[in-house]
Amino acid sequence: MAGLFITIEGVEGSGKSTQLRRLSEHLERLGLPRVVSREPGGTALGLELRRLLLEPHASGEAWCPDAELLLFYADRAQHLHAVIRPALEAGKIVLLDRFEDSTRAYQGANGVADSAMDRLGELVLRRLKPHLTLLLDLEPEEGLTRVAARNEAHGAFAETRYDQAALEFHRRVRSRFLALAQAEPHRIAVVSARDSADQVEAAIWARVSPLLRGAGHGLD
Amino acid sequence: MAGLFITIEGVEGSGKSTQLRRLSEHLERLGLPRVVSREPGGTALGLELRRLLLEPHASGEAWCPDAELLLFYADRAQHLHAVIRPALEAGKIVLLDRFEDSTRAYQGANGVADSAMDRLGELVLRRLKPHLTLLLDLEPEEGLTRVAARNEAHGAFAETRYDQAALEFHRRVRSRFLALAQAEPHRIAVVSARDSADQVEAAIWARVSPLLRGAGHGLD
Repeated sequence: MAGLFITIEGVEGSGKSTQLRRLSEHLERLGLPRVVSREPGGTALGLELRRLLLEPHASGEAWCPDAELLLFYADRAQHLHAVIRPALEAGKIVLLDRFEDSTRAYQGANGVADSAMDRLGELVLRRLKPHLTLLLDLEPEEGLTRVAARNEAHGAFAETRYDQAALEFHRRVRSRFLALAQAEPHRIAVVSARDSADQVEAAIWARVSPLLRGAGHGLD
Repeated sequence: MAGLFITIEGVEGSGKSTQLRRLSEHLERLGLPRVVSREPGGTALGLELRRLLLEPHASGEAWCPDAELLLFYADRAQHLHAVIRPALEAGKIVLLDRFEDSTRAYQGANGVADSAMDRLGELVLRRLKPHLTLLLDLEPEEGLTRVAARNEAHGAFAETRYDQAALEFHRRVRSRFLALAQAEPHRIAVVSARDSADQVEAAIWARVSPLLRGAGHGLD
């Protein structure tokens, strides 16, 4: 595959969407062909799964952990098949808001065994890995406060304070993200999300631009 | 688990639904507690997956084989969690229209590797197997002809003749079912579905009744 595969990961409120948009705009100004997508829900069918995964069902039934995990991987398999692999094969830059590392961090923090994710990851990814993963790192307190503020600003009927259980969960998510970065320092770049959006953007560009040169995307 | 787990398998038109109903009625007359269900779609959430798996999507997008396989197993994981395991733990008889062997036969006939199904089966089933699987065996020509006749009788806008590709596919499905039965003769009972419904019912009862005695379901 000739393309370039970049994922952005991080806890809620870490600014992934903002930074993904800025990175995409930067690449657009340079005239570089790119595809921007997200998980779950990067395809029309995947959107149905996203809805089933994230919205409460009318029946009141909730997914068991095994089923939830399999649905995330079904969404990923479809996304790889319909969007990611074709774009990479066409030499494009693929930018994703969340991918495999989010499953590792969130489902793992929910108690899913790493061995189950190893098995499914092997089946679905077939050794495909992002060339670069940008981990926007932030204290969960700060992230959850930002999300609450954003929800309030949008007039959403949301709590302005998160509860202790949510905080504990997001702490586990963060430490799992950081452990992934420690295990694969060449792939995963930890970027502090405490700084201003401009500073984060600059830090991200410092990581991305060498890959564009390396991949022959016309920046030499 | 104290219950009894029985599945009915077979190609389309082999009479699974009729026989499942008759078996269930027989158990009801004996006052035996039972749960009758099917795959895919044995739960409220599973019904959403059944719809996504079996009905064409408005977008025109179709599932890739990996995603389709993962959805079948997500449905199964949820079904095991919400219906099958609780019923078995409560000592009930669970009767299923299709289970793991259908995935093995149909997805396998579609080119999915056995190793992928081994892996997912291990993850989702955790060694649970039916005590008895009734394989209603029928020549695919006969099964497809019966399905076409049934569709016509119901006024469905359906072809009365199947095409050659469908026939070839159903031949592969049947031979995969028979291979499964050969590999596990103690679990899978092959019952000829060519005979009359009464004869098939009698053959099924001859297989089921000894298990009821063995499981202490009050038939001694």
